[in-house]
Amino acid sequence: MAEPRRLTPLGTPAELRGECARIRSAGQSLGLVPTMGALHAGHRSLILRSLAECDRTAVSIFVNPTQFGPGEDFDRYPRSLEADLLLCSELGVDLVYAPTAEAMYPDGFATWVNLRGVLVETLEAAHRPGHFQGVATVVTKLLVTARPDRAYFGQKDAQQCAVVRRLAADLDTGTEVVVCPTVRDSDGLAFSSRNARLDPAARRQALAIPAALAAAAAAHRAGETDPERIRRLILGRLAESPDLAVDYVAVVDAETFEPARQVSVRCEILIAARIAGTRLIDVLRPGTDERLAVGAGG
Amino acid sequence: MAEPRRLTPLGTPAELRGECARIRSAGQSLGLVPTMGALHAGHRSLILRSLAECDRTAVSIFVNPTQFGPGEDFDRYPRSLEADLLLCSELGVDLVYAPTAEAMYPDGFATWVNLRGVLVETLEAAHRPGHFQGVATVVTKLLVTARPDRAYFGQKDAQQCAVVRRLAADLDTGTEVVVCPTVRDSDGLAFSSRNARLDPAARRQALAIPAALAAAAAAHRAGETDPERIRRLILGRLAESPDLAVDYVAVVDAETFEPARQVSVRCEILIAARIAGTRLIDVLRPGTDERLAVGAGG
Repeated sequence: MAEPRRLTPLGTPAELRGECARIRSAGQSLGLVPTMGALHAGHRSLILRSLAECDRTAVSIFVNPTQFGPGEDFDRYPRSLEADLLLCSELGVDLVYAPTAEAMYPDGFATWVNLRGVLVETLEAAHRPGHFQGVATVVTKLLVTARPDRAYFGQKDAQQCAVVRRLAADLDTGTEVVVCPTVRDSDGLAFSSRNARLDPAARRQALAIPAALAAAAAAHRAGETDPERIRRLILGRLAESPDLAVDYVAVVDAETFEPARQVSVRCEILIAARIAGTRLIDVLRPGTDERLAVGAGG
Repeated sequence: MAEPRRLTPLGTPAELRGECARIRSAGQSLGLVPTMGALHAGHRSLILRSLAECDRTAVSIFVNPTQFGPGEDFDRYPRSLEADLLLCSELGVDLVYAPTAEAMYPDGFATWVNLRGVLVETLEAAHRPGHFQGVATVVTKLLVTARPDRAYFGQKDAQQCAVVRRLAADLDTGTEVVVCPTVRDSDGLAFSSRNARLDPAARRQALAIPAALAAAAAAHRAGETDPERIRRLILGRLAESPDLAVDYVAVVDAETFEPARQVSVRCEILIAARIAGTRLIDVLRPGTDERLAVGAGG
């Protein structure tokens, strides 16, 4: 088998627009996988899904400064462009878009995409002011430039998925937003670029997060439908990791992010917590995420 | 000559997206003329420019509720869809998009495009809170859906033109924003759909607006470069119409809308005033708008 060609990333919106226009004018469908790089098994599953469903697949790699708050980990966010390009080449990705911040936000940049409502006021939004404005703006720019038939996002970032679904519909992008299941490492921890920063002790404590979700899934299977009892069950399990600082545990409607009155397949159970300076999030869709309990590898 | 086919307007974003995709996949260029209908000679000039420059021309007709404030004239805004469709047909427009408010803003709609900075805080923005959020959002939706090569706007709405240029660039739409000269009636009044509401007496008083701009142009030609003296000259001329209530007279940089320090071709001289319940705006680009003084018909 021939060595895969090492992809040369495109660097400007005009280049991406031109390449994607060529794909469309050849009558081919296009999938886009937006990432911040430091690609892991979760991203790999998104890319494979796009390769399976679309004629052509584009991957964007951009650590978007506008979705990080002042005290957050923009500078420390893992970056591995060479390894990412190699992975994309090996998987058969057709093009990679890796713009600079200057290409995305040139001098005089002044236009922002904002959602209104509970979805962008609660949970991640409350803990990360400005985060979803940055996410919504950069995703809009990517969808407008590439004009993909489908865009692929990981379920782990559940609130981001709801924001992106909403803006893709509201702005008439015509892009289908495909949300793919969370991929977990063999110990159950959801893959995240930030996991690279956990030392073994921190990682052990972080495993309380998937363990708590697995306990919630088991309780729901056994008939528990009260959101508050599920929350208390999760909080109790998380408390067994003494260094884990919980930002929130919530049971919400998966579309609106309003608090759920009853635990069902239309809900998401969400956890955000910090350990040793690293913030982790995870999610369970009750009744649809049974692989979680068995810690399937990515 | 055959009767022009009366165009049947498209009503949903999906229909517009589909038709425009067919145009692009045939290798043809597309011009979009976004309007609120009640088409007049100003719109006609935009349409003719698009027909001359693009293989295909789309006209959107949508009285966008989100760019009107609570006390404004959304309900009274002139509407003439049948006449508009006939004009578009006669001119050779290829497609008309006339969505309902429900198609543009379905239940649960939550995504808004906002600019930041002086451009959306001053002048029209100060007098019409929320106006440019409505404009930016609806124009973004139209550009995202139709994906035109060029979009045509009238210079009369100068601040809107600056907003649209900014968002089209910032959101990587790839659309060239073409700003066309203001078209004036034989008495000098800039064409506006709202002119239909002026009775002869109100119209006579409204003519102070182009007369004041013509006086400013003459003063500038004669060497006047001080913005404040130009403003006072205009205010003096407007005061000759006793029922004209001035919202603002301003001399600004045409890109940033910061106050200009010197009157030049890089400036715009702007007037907004109300007469008998109708709000009118007009603009002069010093040194480039000499037709204004002679009251050329559209």
